[in-house]
Amino acid sequence: MTKIGFIGLGIMGGPMAANLVKAGFEVTGYNRSRAKVDRLVDAGGEGAASVAGAVRDADVVITMLPDSPDVQAVVLGEDGVLANAKPGALLIDCSTIRPDVSRAIAGRMRALDAPVSGGEQGAIDGNLSIMVGGAAEDFEAAKDILDAVGGTVVHVGAAGAGQTVKAANQLIVAGTIELVAESLVFLEAHGVDTDAAIKVLSGGLAGNRILDRKAAAMVQREFTPGFRVELHHKDLGIVQAAAREAGVVIPLGAAVAQLMASLNAQGHGALDHGALIELVAQLSGRE
Amino acid sequence: MTKIGFIGLGIMGGPMAANLVKAGFEVTGYNRSRAKVDRLVDAGGEGAASVAGAVRDADVVITMLPDSPDVQAVVLGEDGVLANAKPGALLIDCSTIRPDVSRAIAGRMRALDAPVSGGEQGAIDGNLSIMVGGAAEDFEAAKDILDAVGGTVVHVGAAGAGQTVKAANQLIVAGTIELVAESLVFLEAHGVDTDAAIKVLSGGLAGNRILDRKAAAMVQREFTPGFRVELHHKDLGIVQAAAREAGVVIPLGAAVAQLMASLNAQGHGALDHGALIELVAQLSGRE
Repeated sequence: MTKIGFIGLGIMGGPMAANLVKAGFEVTGYNRSRAKVDRLVDAGGEGAASVAGAVRDADVVITMLPDSPDVQAVVLGEDGVLANAKPGALLIDCSTIRPDVSRAIAGRMRALDAPVSGGEQGAIDGNLSIMVGGAAEDFEAAKDILDAVGGTVVHVGAAGAGQTVKAANQLIVAGTIELVAESLVFLEAHGVDTDAAIKVLSGGLAGNRILDRKAAAMVQREFTPGFRVELHHKDLGIVQAAAREAGVVIPLGAAVAQLMASLNAQGHGALDHGALIELVAQLSGRE
Repeated sequence: MTKIGFIGLGIMGGPMAANLVKAGFEVTGYNRSRAKVDRLVDAGGEGAASVAGAVRDADVVITMLPDSPDVQAVVLGEDGVLANAKPGALLIDCSTIRPDVSRAIAGRMRALDAPVSGGEQGAIDGNLSIMVGGAAEDFEAAKDILDAVGGTVVHVGAAGAGQTVKAANQLIVAGTIELVAESLVFLEAHGVDTDAAIKVLSGGLAGNRILDRKAAAMVQREFTPGFRVELHHKDLGIVQAAAREAGVVIPLGAAVAQLMASLNAQGHGALDHGALIELVAQLSGRE
């Protein structure tokens, strides 16, 4: 029986840990807020009072944390995963962080970077897309665990490659939301029936998941997250740093990063990222 | 029996006219190059030696032409559609042109603007997306004809609205190609397995038709059109003019228009628009 230590039981980590319990794994969870630990215990898991307590007996440690510094502290810090886990334990870091941080961690312990896409609903349904970087044998060893939380689980390369693909994912998602936002404001300004337009746009080469899942809420100016502007702003910082590191020029990526930064700077960090349509409306004097 | 006059039997118009013959309409076609007229005759249609000859007996006239000046000349010019068609004949203009030109034509005769999306394959399969502007009763009268060439046929508003939605379509398509191009060059530079990455990106919120249909060819740098850069460059001019007219600011639309313009200016107008990946590679010193 594989024992899993799970650190970070938030919007994404909570349902992922619960799905692992459901799949028959022994899961011991830790979160700074005790209420989230209690939720895992209610779902049939074990609660721990510290990172050390969650990972001490674990064969596999999963982390799902907000940003690079959180992962560095929890994994490499004193009282962290590396200091307390069994020798040979495997870390699966599902956080979205900088690829170079993932590579640095993989230099210190057996580790996969395994960021996810699909949002809260994907986490609840156990249907996440998971892009995995690391050694092939570690990927094989982790496959049952990843399949318990993911629908599309793909090994994309060596350590850090999962984060690199996740960065590309966040670039495409932000850019597509902005393209749909510009199109919708353009259609509204011309007095076109946006519901009919969304239908016909979805049927052709312009078709995408943002039109399918988000355009209707964007037309309604309904921005309950979903995925928050402040997190996507953080992710676009990762995209830009990783592109600079590789010497790759990303004109649309850079432009949408600026727009997301403006939305965040104007105090809308807690809204869903579909709120980019508000910024296009603002820039066009149509608020 | 509805008689159709069809002007413009090129890559798109040719198979559309053939599908109308197959659906049982009497189609008389005209094209400047006689070889394309002969192809329609081989498919069971009638050939004409002039616009006048194609439209004289027609109940419905369909035009499928490259650009706004072509449509203005063929429809409004002497020896054109308006001068030669029967009173009350309905024009269905399937060209992608400026919305204001469509509105001007609709002020002179019964007309629908009905630009299409879906490319040569969609035209051959009779499965185009068609975005239709004009009077509701004219849309109803044309529905059987449009259904014979289209899969998703939607009435989106008054005269010009079809062109406005097509402009939005071209904005989203160009922008999505560029986002995928930036992502692929970024992944290549980081040494990531792009086939695996395309698979996992397609499974999440980043999923779109460009990843499904074009990304593999872009990775191979295979740019047989498909849809040519020079035409998409023309269309992005329409998008920018129509956005300015409505006072709408489109930061990503403007940026991708510049990139497509550069590709065209560098002599790549005859390549498929997926060639945007070559420009990203060039900008990144990775050719």
